[in-house]
Amino acid sequence: MSNTILLNNRPKGKPSENDFKFVDESIEDLKDGGVKVSLKYVSVDPYLRGRMRDEKSYIPPFELGKPITSTVVAEILESKNDNFSKGDFITGMLPWKKEQIVSSEQLKQLRKVESNQVALSAYLGLLGMTGLTAYFGLTDIGKPQKGEIIVVSGAAGAVGSVVGQIAKIHGLKVIGIAGTDEKIEMLKNDFGFDDGINYNTTENMKSALKELCPDGIDIYFDNVGGDISDAVLFHIKKFARIINCGAISVYNETSLPKSISVQPFLIKNSALMQGFIVGNYQERFSEGIKKLSQWLSEGKLKHEETIVEGFENIPQAFIDLFDGKNKGKMVVKV
Amino acid sequence: MSNTILLNNRPKGKPSENDFKFVDESIEDLKDGGVKVSLKYVSVDPYLRGRMRDEKSYIPPFELGKPITSTVVAEILESKNDNFSKGDFITGMLPWKKEQIVSSEQLKQLRKVESNQVALSAYLGLLGMTGLTAYFGLTDIGKPQKGEIIVVSGAAGAVGSVVGQIAKIHGLKVIGIAGTDEKIEMLKNDFGFDDGINYNTTENMKSALKELCPDGIDIYFDNVGGDISDAVLFHIKKFARIINCGAISVYNETSLPKSISVQPFLIKNSALMQGFIVGNYQERFSEGIKKLSQWLSEGKLKHEETIVEGFENIPQAFIDLFDGKNKGKMVVKV
Repeated sequence: MSNTILLNNRPKGKPSENDFKFVDESIEDLKDGGVKVSLKYVSVDPYLRGRMRDEKSYIPPFELGKPITSTVVAEILESKNDNFSKGDFITGMLPWKKEQIVSSEQLKQLRKVESNQVALSAYLGLLGMTGLTAYFGLTDIGKPQKGEIIVVSGAAGAVGSVVGQIAKIHGLKVIGIAGTDEKIEMLKNDFGFDDGINYNTTENMKSALKELCPDGIDIYFDNVGGDISDAVLFHIKKFARIINCGAISVYNETSLPKSISVQPFLIKNSALMQGFIVGNYQERFSEGIKKLSQWLSEGKLKHEETIVEGFENIPQAFIDLFDGKNKGKMVVKV
Repeated sequence: MSNTILLNNRPKGKPSENDFKFVDESIEDLKDGGVKVSLKYVSVDPYLRGRMRDEKSYIPPFELGKPITSTVVAEILESKNDNFSKGDFITGMLPWKKEQIVSSEQLKQLRKVESNQVALSAYLGLLGMTGLTAYFGLTDIGKPQKGEIIVVSGAAGAVGSVVGQIAKIHGLKVIGIAGTDEKIEMLKNDFGFDDGINYNTTENMKSALKELCPDGIDIYFDNVGGDISDAVLFHIKKFARIINCGAISVYNETSLPKSISVQPFLIKNSALMQGFIVGNYQERFSEGIKKLSQWLSEGKLKHEETIVEGFENIPQAFIDLFDGKNKGKMVVKV
């Protein structure tokens, strides 16, 4: 019975099942200060694709033949650490290994979570990296002002759906771009987006944007890059802010992706593009979680999840991200 | 004898003499509150190419068959305004017309300059839009920190040579990119740049940058766009700032220019790209002029100009910008 998932090949283009390998690894002995845990929920995220490449980035690449890691919620089965007890839940980055030892050193990077207030999986989404990414990207870089207009790409994805809702809380007009009519309906009906564009059925993205944003776009929260982002550039307003959160449309390209040159658009509009990762805001995480929890409890934020069951389905759940099979945060329940 | 230069055609690709037309226009009568002036120095700038297109931008396009305007220094020949006297010099945007009437309304957009301290042409360069562009772009967007490394493209141009010098004042290592060995020598010997790259004789710009900036680039002051800027992206550091000041390499392209997609680079490095025009800082111009004048008087800033003589040579001087024939600010002495 396999308990661990390794990176078997560095994917070429879109990842496939063959890039992963299931093995049975032994579990070390529990030492003083450590805990033994069992994975409960595993987050699969587009950014993991980047770590599968052998190149320098903001976090080191995964090693071939070593377990893949991502953010998880785990239950403590046994503890030799005074701060954690059997039955506690913790969240943070851990390898894809069903049961494992977490050392006292590793525990410093993890934090305890409450299981009674919200569903545990929320800590992989709205109250985890996803919600924090949406919160800091939009508020710190986007600086939303009441009455402005924001376009969100990958709007039905984990981050996008939260971005749109936070933008509504700030009083913006919110347009979401997503890949099916069903997703667009969800954005409008469940998440309060003002309107949406289905990029799969829209022939001319430039005209579609012009129709919905005749006076231009103040903020573009970009989860996808590529052609969609090129089309948005034609409609940005003076002093527009473009938040580069993800570029899922080009992550699987094997040659260097090309786009229209952004420079003339940025100059013409005195516009900003800013890339970021949520880790830059580590020192302000508690501020973000507090804000998000408050909005959640006030009913201002809804949380969409696609929960896939079974440890053995983690690779497929990850692969499905690139076909847009998720609505909201993609999580695997182990 | 022609006294006025009109826009004759909207240039396709690189502008040519044929896109301009010399005519003789009559001079209106001088009314109360106005002045009659004679152009002394005329600034020709790459951004004027943008105004020759028939498209929306940060300033309206030039009209066909109407005079072109740019920043000038003019002498007052006759005054019916209490704030200006015969013999005063003023600077601001005026049409390319040798002698002309400036109304009291127009005068509000112009300001008086001193002719005794510095050469008058300096108001079209170091103490004018050029110097202010360098100052605000570098300090406000670039936020230079001592010990950082900056790359400046179009480094031997009007703005670039000032950017490099201000960066040196802030204690940065400064690398300039320019198109001839002579210009590179000038950057190092006259302007104190630490090193330079001649893009015309460098086969692999990526390697050349890697050699000079093995630890990466903190700030990129971009005057050119295109391939050079693509190469820089591969070497930006975490939290890099890219200042989009100009994109002269693509201004003459007739189809939409393509580049490598910047989004993945910005995300990977939490980097910023920010377009701007100096007009955004209008309220802080006096701060900028004060700083620049101080550095000039302390001998910390040098001023390079290419002065072309003769009103009839204005179009050619403008065209020559696109072949990099200028060193420093290109100015026409009427």
